[in-house]
This record gives sequence, C-alpha cells and structure tokens, in this order.
Amino acid sequence: MHRFFVPDAEATGDERALPDEEAEHLTRVLRLTAGARVRVFDGRGGEWTAEVSAVGRRRARVRLIDRAPAAPEPRVVLSLAVAVLTGDKMDDVVRDVTMLGVRRLIPTITERTAIAPRAIERSGRIARWRRIAIASAKQCGRARLIEVTDAMPLVSALALASDAPKLMLVEPSAGTASVSMRDVPRAPAATLFVGPEGGWTEGERRDARAAGAVAMTLGGLTLRADAAPLVAVTALRALWEDL
Amino acid sequence: MHRFFVPDAEATGDERALPDEEAEHLTRVLRLTAGARVRVFDGRGGEWTAEVSAVGRRRARVRLIDRAPAAPEPRVVLSLAVAVLTGDKMDDVVRDVTMLGVRRLIPTITERTAIAPRAIERSGRIARWRRIAIASAKQCGRARLIEVTDAMPLVSALALASDAPKLMLVEPSAGTASVSMRDVPRAPAATLFVGPEGGWTEGERRDARAAGAVAMTLGGLTLRADAAPLVAVTALRALWEDL
Repeated sequence: MHRFFVPDAEATGDERALPDEEAEHLTRVLRLTAGARVRVFDGRGGEWTAEVSAVGRRRARVRLIDRAPAAPEPRVVLSLAVAVLTGDKMDDVVRDVTMLGVRRLIPTITERTAIAPRAIERSGRIARWRRIAIASAKQCGRARLIEVTDAMPLVSALALASDAPKLMLVEPSAGTASVSMRDVPRAPAATLFVGPEGGWTEGERRDARAAGAVAMTLGGLTLRADAAPLVAVTALRALWEDL
Repeated sequence: MHRFFVPDAEATGDERALPDEEAEHLTRVLRLTAGARVRVFDGRGGEWTAEVSAVGRRRARVRLIDRAPAAPEPRVVLSLAVAVLTGDKMDDVVRDVTMLGVRRLIPTITERTAIAPRAIERSGRIARWRRIAIASAKQCGRARLIEVTDAMPLVSALALASDAPKLMLVEPSAGTASVSMRDVPRAPAATLFVGPEGGWTEGERRDARAAGAVAMTLGGLTLRADAAPLVAVTALRALWEDL
C-alpha cells in the first residue's frame, strides 16, 4: 500500500493535509482519488492506515483510520558521522543507512573531504538529502525518519555525539592503536565515525581520541569510502545481535 | 608499495613478464623503471616482494625477491550468485565483494533481470568485471582474485553451488517460509543467492527449494538491490565470526 509522510499526524480520527511534496506524489504521480486506502507515518515511529479524504490540484487530505504496526526499529540507536562524499554518492548513503535503521546522519567535513562547507550549503545538498530521507523511509517501510543534521566539522560532530560511545573507523594500516569492532562492548546507543577517501589525518585521530572516541578496525579490511558506511553499520548491527 | 598481478608467479628467484595490462600500468601510468621495488601476487594467495628487472615499450619483467605475508583470506569460502544489475552497478558489486573476501561471483540471470543473457555476452561486461576484479585485488591488498564466472541462469548457479549450503536471500514480505540469517548454522563454505530489483519469482523460489537452498531473511530488512550483496556478505561474515 502507498505510504505518505505526514509529520503532524497524531491520533486516529485526525484529518490532515499532506505536505506539498507528498500531495504532489499522491495526486500527480499516483493519481489517487478520495476514498483510496493508504498508509501514513509521522516520521517519529507512528504508522496508521488512512483514507484519502479530499484531493485538489496538488493538494490532498487524509483521515487516519487506525494505528498500524510500524516496522520495528533497531534496538541500538545509531548515529553515523560520515565524511561528505563527492558527486551523488551521499544520496546512496542516505538511502542505505535509512534502510539499515540509522537514527541520525551527520554529514561531516574533514581535512580530506573534497568539498568546502560553503559549497555544501550553496548546493542545496542538505535539503536534497532530507528529501531522499523521506523518500527512502516511504519505500523501505520505516516509520521513523533518519535525522540529517547540517554539515559540520569533525570536532562539532564529536561534540554532538556527547556521551554515547564514539567509534571511529580507521584503516588497519593507519598505525593508530585500535581495537577490532568485534571487541567493542555493546551499548544501547553509539556514534560511528567514517572517514573520507584517504582516511583521517593524524590530527583528526588525535581530536577524536581527546573527545573519548575509540579507534576501531573492521576485520583487517580496507574499505572503499563509498561502501564503508554500509559495511560498518551492517557489521556493527550484526555483531551486536541487532540484525 | 605498488602491486602487480602476475598469474604465473611461482617461486622466489623467478623472473616473469607482466601481463599486458599490468605492464601498461607499470610503464605508462606509474612510469616505474628497472630496479623499482614492487609487490607481486599470483591471484591464488601467493604474494612476493619483487624488483622490476627490465622495462620496454609497454613491457616489463619482474624478479621475485622474497615471499611476503599475504592479506588473510576469510575463513568461510563464500560464493555469491547475484542477479545481474543494470548499468554499471555490477562494477561496484565486483569491487565491494572483492574487498569483502568473496571467493566466487556468479552473475545470475533471473526472470526479473532486466538484461538478456546474449546482451551480457555481446557487451563484453564479463571481461570488464574480470578486469575490475584484478584492479580491486591490487587496490585492497588481496592476494587472491575473485573468480567471476560466465553469466548463467539461476538453475545453473544452483547446480554449480553443489553441496555447500545454498542460502537464498528473500524479502520478509515474500511469503516464503524462511529463516533468519542469524539462525543459519555456520559452515566452512556457502553460496549466497541475491535476487534482482523486484525479487525472486515464485518459480525461482521453488527451483531453489528443490535444489536444497534455504530461504533466508535479514533482520526484517527490505534491501535495495544495489546494496543487498554488500549487506548480505557483511552480515554473514559478522554473524559467523569471520570479520
């Protein structure tokens, strides 16, 4: 059944207008009409069966009929701070980690990130990633949206992670003292830090250590920057018996 | 140190000519000259330090100086039969699963594969994937090449898998009786079957069952076809304590 994101959905019986992009999708792409049964989610874990109650030109309203079972969220609340990838590679990261249940994505500027922070702002990419986050949640059945924060430098991402374990993925060859992901103690929440092509600089590894982060390798693997977020999140969830 | 694939490397002291593409890489891209120290691997797990002994126009010879420690291979010998993806998406699959230590990749034609077998042959894509397999092994430090088989229909891939456990990844919604990957007993070898966008057909799931394959889901996740091979291999290696 088609699913729509309705951020102000609250209770069975409510009637709500769809946000513009969702209404556009319902009326112009899917061409649904009043009476159609749909699913609605609020992006915070709530899911309902609903009925299209009114459609207009690029507008639509739905009435929430009944609570529906939401797809289960992972037990571990994962944040992922990932060095911003070039081109449209971050689009796939947003899709993939939405599907894998990551709670928060922190686009991170590192010394070897090939893109300047201002260029990220100007390009409208953050807004684009947030739209992709919604589309991905719709598609994979998740009732909770991944939060895509503003882009920020590593030190800010480290500060944002506050007291959850901070796990920095490093290359086996980086020469930093590190543990294997397998030996990291389980926790109810964690923030994973995944670096850019070319890896973290020594200064960044020092900043991370000073902020309490643990340098961690994954089975001796040297991962492509594009694939690293997906592999790291999958491995962590599997090793922590959360998959 | 730069690494080169020398399939006929055998013993310390040997002098060998590089295959054409490798010689081209050494002479024209890297512009190495006689005396340069390099690494050589034979694609079967052997690795040496070596010295460039002669270079010519697009030709090069190396002398094997000493055995070098090869990157450790996974304990589990994994084959991956994956429905051929459109465009250049298979290129990334080859790169990613090389890095993850998969031993054999079987490009599989399924009922919902969008490409005809003859089109795959004519396009030269198999040869291309084999070149990418070499380039990826060079880059990620692996001394063993992934074997890329010819493209074949699912029934042939099932037959090829012979008696290793055959694990078919299915969507949670597929309605097939299935187990969770977490509950699959460990084995020294296994073949993973990963389907196309749109999933396996009922007939394919029946064929697989008849060939002794186990239908398996991954933590209730519905995976994008592009990401599924990487996620499935990572999760299996992590769950089998091989990562």
